Amino acid sequence: MLAEGLLGPHSSKTASACIRYTPDRVAAVIDSTKAGRVVQDFLGFGGDIPIVATLEEGLAHRPNAVLIGIAPAGGQLPAEWRQMLVTSLERGLDVWSGLHFFLADDEQLSAAARRGSARIFDLRRPPAGLDVSTGKTRDIDATVVLTVGTDCNIGKMTAQLQLRDVLKQRGNRVAFAATGQTGILIEGWGISVDAVVADFIGGAAEQLTLQAAKDADIVLVEGQGSIIHPSFSGVTVGLIHGTLPHAFVLCAQPSRTRIRNREWVPIPPLDEFIRMHDTLAAPLRPAPTIAVALNTSDLSDADARAAIRETESLTGLPATDPVRYDAAPIAEAIEAFHRSRTPQFASRA
Amino acid sequence: MLAEGLLGPHSSKTASACIRYTPDRVAAVIDSTKAGRVVQDFLGFGGDIPIVATLEEGLAHRPNAVLIGIAPAGGQLPAEWRQMLVTSLERGLDVWSGLHFFLADDEQLSAAARRGSARIFDLRRPPAGLDVSTGKTRDIDATVVLTVGTDCNIGKMTAQLQLRDVLKQRGNRVAFAATGQTGILIEGWGISVDAVVADFIGGAAEQLTLQAAKDADIVLVEGQGSIIHPSFSGVTVGLIHGTLPHAFVLCAQPSRTRIRNREWVPIPPLDEFIRMHDTLAAPLRPAPTIAVALNTSDLSDADARAAIRETESLTGLPATDPVRYDAAPIAEAIEAFHRSRTPQFASRA
Repeated sequence: MLAEGLLGPHSSKTASACIRYTPDRVAAVIDSTKAGRVVQDFLGFGGDIPIVATLEEGLAHRPNAVLIGIAPAGGQLPAEWRQMLVTSLERGLDVWSGLHFFLADDEQLSAAARRGSARIFDLRRPPAGLDVSTGKTRDIDATVVLTVGTDCNIGKMTAQLQLRDVLKQRGNRVAFAATGQTGILIEGWGISVDAVVADFIGGAAEQLTLQAAKDADIVLVEGQGSIIHPSFSGVTVGLIHGTLPHAFVLCAQPSRTRIRNREWVPIPPLDEFIRMHDTLAAPLRPAPTIAVALNTSDLSDADARAAIRETESLTGLPATDPVRYDAAPIAEAIEAFHRSRTPQFASRA
Repeated sequence: MLAEGLLGPHSSKTASACIRYTPDRVAAVIDSTKAGRVVQDFLGFGGDIPIVATLEEGLAHRPNAVLIGIAPAGGQLPAEWRQMLVTSLERGLDVWSGLHFFLADDEQLSAAARRGSARIFDLRRPPAGLDVSTGKTRDIDATVVLTVGTDCNIGKMTAQLQLRDVLKQRGNRVAFAATGQTGILIEGWGISVDAVVADFIGGAAEQLTLQAAKDADIVLVEGQGSIIHPSFSGVTVGLIHGTLPHAFVLCAQPSRTRIRNREWVPIPPLDEFIRMHDTLAAPLRPAPTIAVALNTSDLSDADARAAIRETESLTGLPATDPVRYDAAPIAEAIEAFHRSRTPQFASRA
């Protein structure tokens, strides 16, 4: 996994999420600034996955593929990684990428892939035949829950993955619908809705939701961006109106007061976010916010617990950090909401 | 201009707008259901532009290009038009298209273009090198006005084109920023923001706004979709947050009570729209709604005037139909707003 200079809980979302959810698949991580240590030292999870300085050193761990573990804004290929990818492909290693720039469309890289009989997987490439949304998700029996957030990169995917595991353990038929490259990599299917033609955001969201609902009573859709993010709010709103969720789980990082890399945008209080999401959902299908997932990874235990209490008091909703603490309070809120809208389940219970 | 079966004020937006604003460029319209008549009979404008049944008949009017005058939802190429386009290209006629499906990428059509030494112009193809938005539009001195609407296809582009003309006549330095294929065709430049990669909606809007502001004191940005449109709200919101307008002009069609082709979505009253747009804009840059443009083309004169009075009474804002009546009330609202935020102009006046 390439994560040069970027291995950390907040700076390399793809890398850290893949290590958290699929550690068995990670042979080694390339980050020359931290070489010689193990992943656990920097992420607090990931065990003894080794960190190496170069591709050459990584090959000693016998990988069969290279994953690009970063997803920079704009999604272009960092120039200094090109030669490393050419070499990987020529040596027969598949390359997995979540960049907006499609590696398979690059002549030099696709030629290298042919020489090495290797494959290029562009996780963000949209499926063929997307179209505009039609509102078909209104016919779904399953309860659809979408995560929404105050900013990018605060845990909208991670919250859903934690909730999926807990809800499954508690005996629910639950599906996770991945809407970004990292979720697709972890789950094995999905559509990167930020990479589709803008008119088809809703259509892609609809298609994902319908597919996830086929074998599930509860569908957890991975949210994207934030309705106040100057660059990504279009994707966020398209996802809300394409998915037509029954309920929202609001995600936030208590320490963050301004949009990351857009410091001119202050983040409003959570109760205001709840009102904004109410306002946007209501004309199509009202969707209450039923719980809050906090990312407290940069707070002490005492500060994290205080932030959770404050959030519960401000919003009147159950709140927790579903990674650091038990995700049950949010899972219970989802179950209770699901029972309330499907009385046949309640009577069976 | 191909507009088979679709020539009418509400069903063929590209065709009717091009006839309205660039009638000198239209040699003939192909619509076999209305052949033998002239455009004026169906649109109420367009004069004696002939309507013909076939491409063969159209050739008698000596065109040098074929324009696809429809933009169906989903933007694919109607199968029955393929042979007509092949023939056109082989005979040396350029083809202009606003479809999501790029004709130049089609092997059969591009081969026909080579045989006929003709060109294919895909108006919706995004420029290379788009990126996410950065918020640079906050540095613009010009007053940026965006049209927003209750639905698609109700006059957000037309309102701006009418206002551009009136504001120009009144001595303002004004620019129109086209965000859709029809606007691009009329104005000669622009980006179809609904066709860019979803993450770049805001970036495309930002680029357009910056370019339009170079030689103008007032920038009129063409709006898209509606914040309550289930399929297109993502584009609408991305455009709002990428443009960061100083003010909105709200567009509506009084006779329309539900979203077209999405009748399960009732259209809320206009004062509620104003509150929703306030809510979405405020966290980034507050933008008041300063006027309302009504499309009354399907109402009697008496009903149209009553609708305008009711709108003014409900919203407390100047309202008019800028196509049917004088656009001055909205133009004056824009001028007054521009003066209020740029006192140096007021003192000069």
